Amino acid sequence: MSVSPAPLRVAVVGAGAMGADHVRRITTRISGAEVTAIVDPDTGRATAAAELAPGSVTFASFEEALEAVELDAVIIATPGFLHEPVILPALDAGLAILSEKPLSDTVESSLRIVEAEQKLARPHIQVGFMRRFDAGYLQLRELVERGDNGALLALHCAHRNPSTPPNYSESALITDSVIHEIDIVPFLTGEPIVSVEVKKPRRNSLAPDGLVEPQFVLFETASGTLAIVEISVNIQFGYQVTTDAVFESGVASIGRAETIQIASAGQIGQSVTPSFKERFGLAYDTEIQRWVDAAHRGEIDGPSAWDGYLASVVADAGVLAQQSGKKEPVTYAIEKPAFYETRQSLATAPSSATA
Amino acid sequence: MSVSPAPLRVAVVGAGAMGADHVRRITTRISGAEVTAIVDPDTGRATAAAELAPGSVTFASFEEALEAVELDAVIIATPGFLHEPVILPALDAGLAILSEKPLSDTVESSLRIVEAEQKLARPHIQVGFMRRFDAGYLQLRELVERGDNGALLALHCAHRNPSTPPNYSESALITDSVIHEIDIVPFLTGEPIVSVEVKKPRRNSLAPDGLVEPQFVLFETASGTLAIVEISVNIQFGYQVTTDAVFESGVASIGRAETIQIASAGQIGQSVTPSFKERFGLAYDTEIQRWVDAAHRGEIDGPSAWDGYLASVVADAGVLAQQSGKKEPVTYAIEKPAFYETRQSLATAPSSATA
Amino acid sequence: MSVSPAPLRVAVVGAGAMGADHVRRITTRISGAEVTAIVDPDTGRATAAAELAPGSVTFASFEEALEAVELDAVIIATPGFLHEPVILPALDAGLAILSEKPLSDTVESSLRIVEAEQKLARPHIQVGFMRRFDAGYLQLRELVERGDNGALLALHCAHRNPSTPPNYSESALITDSVIHEIDIVPFLTGEPIVSVEVKKPRRNSLAPDGLVEPQFVLFETASGTLAIVEISVNIQFGYQVTTDAVFESGVASIGRAETIQIASAGQIGQSVTPSFKERFGLAYDTEIQRWVDAAHRGEIDGPSAWDGYLASVVADAGVLAQQSGKKEPVTYAIEKPAFYETRQSLATAPSSATA
Amino acid sequence: MSVSPAPLRVAVVGAGAMGADHVRRITTRISGAEVTAIVDPDTGRATAAAELAPGSVTFASFEEALEAVELDAVIIATPGFLHEPVILPALDAGLAILSEKPLSDTVESSLRIVEAEQKLARPHIQVGFMRRFDAGYLQLRELVERGDNGALLALHCAHRNPSTPPNYSESALITDSVIHEIDIVPFLTGEPIVSVEVKKPRRNSLAPDGLVEPQFVLFETASGTLAIVEISVNIQFGYQVTTDAVFESGVASIGRAETIQIASAGQIGQSVTPSFKERFGLAYDTEIQRWVDAAHRGEIDGPSAWDGYLASVVADAGVLAQQSGKKEPVTYAIEKPAFYETRQSLATAPSSATA
Repeated sequence: MSVSPAPLRVAVVGAGAMGADHVRRITTRISGAEVTAIVDPDTGRATAAAELAPGSVTFASFEEALEAVELDAVIIATPGFLHEPVILPALDAGLAILSEKPLSDTVESSLRIVEAEQKLARPHIQVGFMRRFDAGYLQLRELVERGDNGALLALHCAHRNPSTPPNYSESALITDSVIHEIDIVPFLTGEPIVSVEVKKPRRNSLAPDGLVEPQFVLFETASGTLAIVEISVNIQFGYQVTTDAVFESGVASIGRAETIQIASAGQIGQSVTPSFKERFGLAYDTEIQRWVDAAHRGEIDGPSAWDGYLASVVADAGVLAQQSGKKEPVTYAIEKPAFYETRQSLATAPSSATA
Repeated sequence: MSVSPAPLRVAVVGAGAMGADHVRRITTRISGAEVTAIVDPDTGRATAAAELAPGSVTFASFEEALEAVELDAVIIATPGFLHEPVILPALDAGLAILSEKPLSDTVESSLRIVEAEQKLARPHIQVGFMRRFDAGYLQLRELVERGDNGALLALHCAHRNPSTPPNYSESALITDSVIHEIDIVPFLTGEPIVSVEVKKPRRNSLAPDGLVEPQFVLFETASGTLAIVEISVNIQFGYQVTTDAVFESGVASIGRAETIQIASAGQIGQSVTPSFKERFGLAYDTEIQRWVDAAHRGEIDGPSAWDGYLASVVADAGVLAQQSGKKEPVTYAIEKPAFYETRQSLATAPSSATA
Repeated sequence: MSVSPAPLRVAVVGAGAMGADHVRRITTRISGAEVTAIVDPDTGRATAAAELAPGSVTFASFEEALEAVELDAVIIATPGFLHEPVILPALDAGLAILSEKPLSDTVESSLRIVEAEQKLARPHIQVGFMRRFDAGYLQLRELVERGDNGALLALHCAHRNPSTPPNYSESALITDSVIHEIDIVPFLTGEPIVSVEVKKPRRNSLAPDGLVEPQFVLFETASGTLAIVEISVNIQFGYQVTTDAVFESGVASIGRAETIQIASAGQIGQSVTPSFKERFGLAYDTEIQRWVDAAHRGEIDGPSAWDGYLASVVADAGVLAQQSGKKEPVTYAIEKPAFYETRQSLATAPSSATA
Repeated sequence: MSVSPAPLRVAVVGAGAMGADHVRRITTRISGAEVTAIVDPDTGRATAAAELAPGSVTFASFEEALEAVELDAVIIATPGFLHEPVILPALDAGLAILSEKPLSDTVESSLRIVEAEQKLARPHIQVGFMRRFDAGYLQLRELVERGDNGALLALHCAHRNPSTPPNYSESALITDSVIHEIDIVPFLTGEPIVSVEVKKPRRNSLAPDGLVEPQFVLFETASGTLAIVEISVNIQFGYQVTTDAVFESGVASIGRAETIQIASAGQIGQSVTPSFKERFGLAYDTEIQRWVDAAHRGEIDGPSAWDGYLASVVADAGVLAQQSGKKEPVTYAIEKPAFYETRQSLATAPSSATA
């Protein structure tokens, strides 16, 4: 009679909406992990999050947590510019790391993280691109890999938010929103993005003063696959993410159907999810569960720090393209290290893929 | 710093396909529980299931398991006629019990179980009607409760399986298959079923010799809501469960859309799930997680033994209606005991509801 | 250089909404016909309709029209009890006849018409069951005939109207509304209906006082195909006609999709047609065009008086079944005369089939 | 008693597939017109087409037809470079003219036609952009005009053909295929196109040697509305035309649903139309009927020669953009003459809009 593995002891750094959501998730829905420490300089937020996780302790800084409690892993849900100061000591401590996107706020910082990680024997960092765990994207990638309809030639992507939070800037269209497509295009195609261009159609008058949106962002991958991403962030009606993938002999679409259809008052239709939480809630669950499972095996099973670095380079070029109005090349400072060669497993597609 | 609750120690009785699936589920996807014992007189099946759960021990009988290891809970996944012999000692031992449907194989046995349970201070038994945890059915029930479109007047249900296992009998159409609608109709309407009638259309020539199907089963609830259930069990194309709910001023439909749409070879469409496992896999996950969570609180959070008893009474009347060709009344031997008055919570609708 | 055939000179009898619609249709959208006479004792209605058709003349009675102008054909759009007094002289005059449904108001009258028609050399009467010209029903019948998915075993039909006109009676549920399914079931299956039964679920409180609806009407055909028809006539949200056809190895559905989808205000969906005119407007166009084309050839190309007689027998049994609450057999007084053996052509499926 | 108007006497010039289709359409489905002359230097084709239209006569040239028979109207279905030699004498003869797209093969020729037409008292030429008569596009334009969801900001268009005829060139992607979107974008937005740019993604290996496709064509209108058109012409699976219109507070989609849904062999889905004839057959019917109706009134009721000229200017810029890889401005040589100010009526939306 062997013994069940002890739960992964996780620190959650950042107790805002996303961090608190992860605390709740790990405590109530994730197997094999428990929240041991909650780190936030805002004591009120930290305490509120701790109430969701019996047995957790709050700290004002990650260093204090590292010293005070035994940790196996850390989830980082702070703003991007605060990621590196947590990731580097977490690497030193040999923790399993899940960093919410972006990996860091600058290409330089991302590169430092990638270099620091390579001093370890194996990758420890996973980046929180949760769409890779969404049933639709997984089915789409399987379709690309099976090649049933030939090669993938182009992608029409739409990424629509009902409204923007205060202080949302034009560059955030790329770095906060399109960053998900920046990750998912290479995930689907198996190829890096090599150029980016931005088109600005007629402005939505419902956007806050000064914000020029929607925008269309055009990405090319190494083999020429073209991805055209509509980013709309004040479209009111709901949160909607769709992809139509154009293959040589077919087209596949995701994100266009919901569970229940209602005929009422002259209309037959479906609800649209109000925010990313409802649309991708299950993907977050799957992401965290697989990260926990992999941590028990001493692995990662999701987008790596290298993927995070790639995304930061493309996002930089995208912001430049917003300003220049031209097609901007994407140039990576270094080749992909062999350290990162292992590809994310798709074998354990979650049961959610068929829900 | 409090301590995380110890995992629920679960015995899984019956190591066939369903039992093994639950072992895998608890071990890899469920938080707060672990499989401690696996019970099956077939040593090979027991051992195979035990390999899925590190730390689990196999036993040939539930009695042996009860004596040998500390248990908090039991999942029963044997054929229905073997449920009572496990449930009664499990009640004596004060375990949390999840019985796969049906609660038992006869109305009399179901009644004995309900009576035995009432000797305890609170309900301990949950019955495995997993559709109550499916996002679609939950959304439909919310719609009924909100009353946006007036009262629910009628339900068109279709329950389609690609093919039948060997020895599947005509009565199994009711007791194995339509049993899910027998549970879900009261769940949706909040009312008991009061009559049942069976119509037999033209026979499917692809059914095994002697099996007369499809059949249409008509249920009436106390207020007159009519549910018409098509049960088809050799329809080849896949596993499909749909419901169209007719309200006073609208109609709601579930089960008609899947995640990815593919245009290929002259067709645009979606895959149909091949079996109940893919269609309701996520509902099983949610069911078990909520059962585990409630067990930690000393509660149940799903269909009760009383619901199981009700279903067995309706199923009995349904089998009679298959034979008589007439509308058969459904008569319950006892009133609902106050013991079972607490209604299943819908408050903690799973995140899957919006995926 | 041959000469184009002269347009069919048509009298329209009955200048209410339906008659006026046919006047407009023939004048503006139908090739090879013109409205010559408009018959209505209500002079105002007749004159209003005549303004839609340049060159048409109004009459207070069909006899006057027959005497005054040269006619090739007549469309009858009066209430059913007024059909026979027009059909019989029109047969005597050898006109091509299109009678709106029902053929007549009683089985006896329908039978008299069928007998009178057989004194002619060939069928002259077509009955206005326009669904036979709807793209969806045509595709469904083709699917039945091709047998791709085996035999047709059962049909789930829903027939929903937003509200009822004044004085709509319970029997009208059968004789005015379900009459369309009474025609379409034999059209799809190629078999007569042999029994009918009515189930009354919980009453819609939005129905006018005294009207018990919705109702479910169950039809069996000769080979046992079961058609279950939901008739709802005060369901508010719109006019919707759907059919799910259960085959041995597949299911086909019509009436569930519309042209444009709109995402707005938290919903993504489609408009529902407000009335039968929008839903079946194109079917009416096709029906009339094919009737005109066939009249030029000296044929009919649609449901015959025999089909009208069959429908009236089934409707009679349906009204009886509403009252008796039992399954009522449908008995036809006579065998199908050889005179009516020619089956309606499906070869010239309208271009609308693919719109 | 007034007299019905005599049918419009139509010459069809060009008896290839499209011309023959129009002959069949006018003869069998269109009210108020008849084919009097069929013109084609290929006697076999002319004779074959004439067999479809009783009373029609064949001619080797349009001049011969003009001299030999009385004509009211002409439909031109020859290759574009042969349009001007028919249009100019037809204008001289005062005929109602329907020219299949393009109006002519060069901008210069189009301009000559526009100038010649203005010598008449009113427009006589309609161009065969049939999509303006498609129910989906009409509903979309109504939505733009009603402004329910604010201004139209962007359009995602997909235009997919299963395969190309022999000798289909890269410029034909613009001049033969995208020409429909070139017309429909101003139709929907009410604004001219001011720039065009072409993006070439990874090439479809199923395209004939030398043909680089798919391509994405980006159009900007005067107010900045961006239309992105995917043109794929060897995508095998069928003919599919979809549009997703992005408004300030909503999205509308057309072309994504068909009439019948079939669940069979693990799939649930719909047929895709094999060619433009099935997809737009009804739009052609409506186009021709409204052209005939307007001709009887001495008007045109569809896209004018001016629309044809605009399209030819944009197509020219598009072909340039294919070669340059840059955004090309679209410059119109002349302002819109007051002669063309009357806007196409939408009031008489066809009944097909709701089928």
